Amino acid sequence: MKLKQIQSILKEEQAQAAWITTPLNIFYLTGYHSEPHERLFALLIKDDGEQILICPKMEMGEVQNSPFEGKVIGYLDSENPLSKLDSTFDKMLIEAYHLTVARQRELKETFEVNSFADIDQTLRELRNIKSDEEIDKIKKACALADKCIEFGVSYLKEGVTERQVVNYIENEIKAYGVNEMSFDTMVLFGDHAASPHGIPGDRKLQQDEFVLFDLGVVYEHYCSDITRTIPFGNPSDEAKNIYNIVLEAEEKAIAAIKPGVKISDIDKLARNIIAEAGYGEYFTHRLGHGLGLEEHEYQDVSGNNDNSFEAGMVITIEPGIYAPNIAGVRIEDDILVTDDGAISLTEYKK
Amino acid sequence: MKLKQIQSILKEEQAQAAWITTPLNIFYLTGYHSEPHERLFALLIKDDGEQILICPKMEMGEVQNSPFEGKVIGYLDSENPLSKLDSTFDKMLIEAYHLTVARQRELKETFEVNSFADIDQTLRELRNIKSDEEIDKIKKACALADKCIEFGVSYLKEGVTERQVVNYIENEIKAYGVNEMSFDTMVLFGDHAASPHGIPGDRKLQQDEFVLFDLGVVYEHYCSDITRTIPFGNPSDEAKNIYNIVLEAEEKAIAAIKPGVKISDIDKLARNIIAEAGYGEYFTHRLGHGLGLEEHEYQDVSGNNDNSFEAGMVITIEPGIYAPNIAGVRIEDDILVTDDGAISLTEYKK
Repeated sequence: MKLKQIQSILKEEQAQAAWITTPLNIFYLTGYHSEPHERLFALLIKDDGEQILICPKMEMGEVQNSPFEGKVIGYLDSENPLSKLDSTFDKMLIEAYHLTVARQRELKETFEVNSFADIDQTLRELRNIKSDEEIDKIKKACALADKCIEFGVSYLKEGVTERQVVNYIENEIKAYGVNEMSFDTMVLFGDHAASPHGIPGDRKLQQDEFVLFDLGVVYEHYCSDITRTIPFGNPSDEAKNIYNIVLEAEEKAIAAIKPGVKISDIDKLARNIIAEAGYGEYFTHRLGHGLGLEEHEYQDVSGNNDNSFEAGMVITIEPGIYAPNIAGVRIEDDILVTDDGAISLTEYKK
Repeated sequence: MKLKQIQSILKEEQAQAAWITTPLNIFYLTGYHSEPHERLFALLIKDDGEQILICPKMEMGEVQNSPFEGKVIGYLDSENPLSKLDSTFDKMLIEAYHLTVARQRELKETFEVNSFADIDQTLRELRNIKSDEEIDKIKKACALADKCIEFGVSYLKEGVTERQVVNYIENEIKAYGVNEMSFDTMVLFGDHAASPHGIPGDRKLQQDEFVLFDLGVVYEHYCSDITRTIPFGNPSDEAKNIYNIVLEAEEKAIAAIKPGVKISDIDKLARNIIAEAGYGEYFTHRLGHGLGLEEHEYQDVSGNNDNSFEAGMVITIEPGIYAPNIAGVRIEDDILVTDDGAISLTEYKK
């Protein structure tokens, strides 16, 4: 199915081959996951449907145990993997947003390429719509993220540091089989949370302030990403008011999502609620982003995106207000778009 | 100093500007560290010595608190950062091994560039020789890696799983201020260690086998990387014999390192010891690699590298023998090259 779509793009572009090197795109297309870092790892797809995976020789056994059914070429560190391919292509499709200038130069020489065009957007659009199997994995990642928030909240006490709470969460969740977080777990206390990219440190928790958790886990290569802002004791009326505004913006945005609705309109809806409450200048980022194999992927939920929601998309909705010296509040859920509207896959109470 | 070297390369190449986008190279040159992922983060160095750092607007405060003294241009997600630069350059130096094809296309259009050349090797050579300040940080990272091995060894008992030992080490070392390992911690038991890229799992420790630890920590952005293979009980005579061969290869290789010695000769020295003992086919990788801001960096310690050691280099020496169904043994230390020879910065007993 995916292969057919790549072949039809090749035909449309009058190109003879596609060269794919993003490990997650290769996983998406082949079911084989690897991150050989500086070593070459590439999937060549020809217009006749032939697929060739090029990988370090020591991985060949693992590839053969994977769902991938094409040809595999392994190479040793002492070998030039490209020399093992004996083809020429007049035009190639490449991931222009991933392939380096040096690698493109090698392709040009090896395959005597005369022109290149981008395949990035095709792959983004394929990955934008999740299959049922993908949705199941994201759901499991979301349930584990909910669990992490539960652990974090249970550990809050006066004097505990942000870093200690992070460590507690990441340690406890390992017992559930989680070996990787989607990104660096964020736990920020009180006014420290007013920095949208703050780093957890030795700040100690005080009575009557908010605690912001932003975290996610990776489950079978799929990511979750949740934010909760939780009162510890009784925060100030202004801080609580800010919380209620963010919650209203988040819930109304989610309720308005369904296939055919313009993405930018949902960003505007949330932004207007915050602006009308007088905090517009403190909501400084996009409303959300795509989620799947990456914790941030296509597409942006922002005022610049005039595409429409489609069934099968998974995105985050995460409005925030960062009021210096008062509070930083963000609430984020992972949302599946269905024919009947939006479903939140993260469920921790808010 | 570093700036002067970049300027002299610009002059030599008759280029008007260098465009640097590897976060670690930017840190190396400016003292400011950031990883804004898909967002643009770049350092522009002009031939007249002007330096401009382009970063997301929300990072501008942190840049101003950093050692960087050049100009800073911040941008919002809704803005095109390149439109804020009003210059043209006939020739630019780029990191061809990092810059993507799409970014190069943007530079060409924005700055009306007619030709590009690579600056990668210049930066690798600069980073190859460590300053005293860098060496101090690597030493601290190495002492923490020694500590990790200590924790791991203290936790060994019959029936414990590889994954449990990994979790224990990573959790205990956090109390020493370590928030990041250099790479995924590896703990492999017995014949499982015969796979040089094995993944720690549910394999249980049995009496009389070796345990292979390969790990490192990040201390103030600098990495360590140590491997120890430790007997649990009394491994077989053949396994112990393999251990002694690897140890001899490692110690003799280290003892022979000094400025002016060809790197490939040291790889050959270690490889010959292993081959003469009859295990040549089971030493399947290079002898070592550079270490610093990255856990694997320039330059390779391999049979293909005819450069010579220089004072100030930090590299790993890590011979191994992976004998299927018998044992996998690797011993690795982090080595500082000085005028008087090699000093091991990792010190855990072997």
